[in-house]
Amino acid sequence: MITFLPLNAHGNPQKVLIVGGGDGGVAREVSKHPLVKEIVQVEIDQKVIDVSKKYLPGMAAGFDSPKLTLLVCDGFEYMKNHQNEFDVIITDSSDPVGPAENLFTESYFALLKKALKPNGVICSQGGTVWCCLDYIKKTLDGCRKHFKNVEYARCSVPTYPNGEIGFVIATDDQSLQLSKAKYVFTEKELDELRLKYYTPEVHTAAFALPNFVRQALKSSS
Amino acid sequence: MITFLPLNAHGNPQKVLIVGGGDGGVAREVSKHPLVKEIVQVEIDQKVIDVSKKYLPGMAAGFDSPKLTLLVCDGFEYMKNHQNEFDVIITDSSDPVGPAENLFTESYFALLKKALKPNGVICSQGGTVWCCLDYIKKTLDGCRKHFKNVEYARCSVPTYPNGEIGFVIATDDQSLQLSKAKYVFTEKELDELRLKYYTPEVHTAAFALPNFVRQALKSSS
Repeated sequence: MITFLPLNAHGNPQKVLIVGGGDGGVAREVSKHPLVKEIVQVEIDQKVIDVSKKYLPGMAAGFDSPKLTLLVCDGFEYMKNHQNEFDVIITDSSDPVGPAENLFTESYFALLKKALKPNGVICSQGGTVWCCLDYIKKTLDGCRKHFKNVEYARCSVPTYPNGEIGFVIATDDQSLQLSKAKYVFTEKELDELRLKYYTPEVHTAAFALPNFVRQALKSSS
Repeated sequence: MITFLPLNAHGNPQKVLIVGGGDGGVAREVSKHPLVKEIVQVEIDQKVIDVSKKYLPGMAAGFDSPKLTLLVCDGFEYMKNHQNEFDVIITDSSDPVGPAENLFTESYFALLKKALKPNGVICSQGGTVWCCLDYIKKTLDGCRKHFKNVEYARCSVPTYPNGEIGFVIATDDQSLQLSKAKYVFTEKELDELRLKYYTPEVHTAAFALPNFVRQALKSSS
């Protein structure tokens, strides 16, 4: 979901940046998209990659994609030197409390915006509504300082705490309806790409927030 | 969700039967609905009611509704003697393995159909896709023998195993789109009824199933 929500909301994602995602799973899914030509991934920790290759070969298969350039470096530094370059940037990080804290700050969203092409789309892991509503509000507030069109979406992951995960998804293109897939996978594509979770209907459903969440996030804007 | 999905899919739910639901929570929510005039609840176990009143007063508040007639008896026997009577029947049971097993059988759906008015809507707890996909298929197959229009929906409940719960929802009215609220709560109603989860958008989103679930349940029809 962290891949196909931004890729299909964008509609024509040719060049994609992945920040983090050291297990390879995001690269694996992004590389499936028929329109994506080039993927750059910046992961700060070589050990995460090595351990994933050893113990999570199914995920790490993403590193074998011919579309992928994998760089072991600091995403902050990389983006400072690569501006106006990407259609979609996906940040696949750990939670907002701890080492990944700086991937949820306003200054991080400023950096994302500069690395994006105009009307590009970003998507970041965003915490869950059941335990982190205050963090989500804070993250969205920071994101709204740099993007005009900001949404929160969620999907089910039974092995995660609370059984779900959330995403912050944003663009500067106000005409883009992020909750609607602009690139719509056909039934044939869903089969061929072996998508187990995502469908165009699931895309839209991910943005339908429980009333208490909708109320809480509305007031943060 | 087990209440507002069938009530609002139906559109004009005046008389409602609750089977089970001994904690009072379903009665509490059904009684909020402005169109509902009369609720009958059949709970087989007086002790569940007593313990809920003592330890779960917030849920058991539902038993104080002036719309409610609470009967301690066997739902199977009750329905045999009350046919063609209800607009909506909600079965709030425990899981399909164990004491509530007979609430997931084909013969139970036959009984529900007879107790319903023509074009009434039923909704039953239906197990989750992450652990019970085979049970869900079996339940839907049984349900489809008695109802022409059968769907499965789900919502997030972080304290349940897998973080979610599912519902079997069905009617004989083939023109009814169960995934669309026919009675649409206004913003004012959502506020006044203090609905924390349900909105008309959440109603529709509950029916957007992950691709593997959609595929699995499609083949069972």
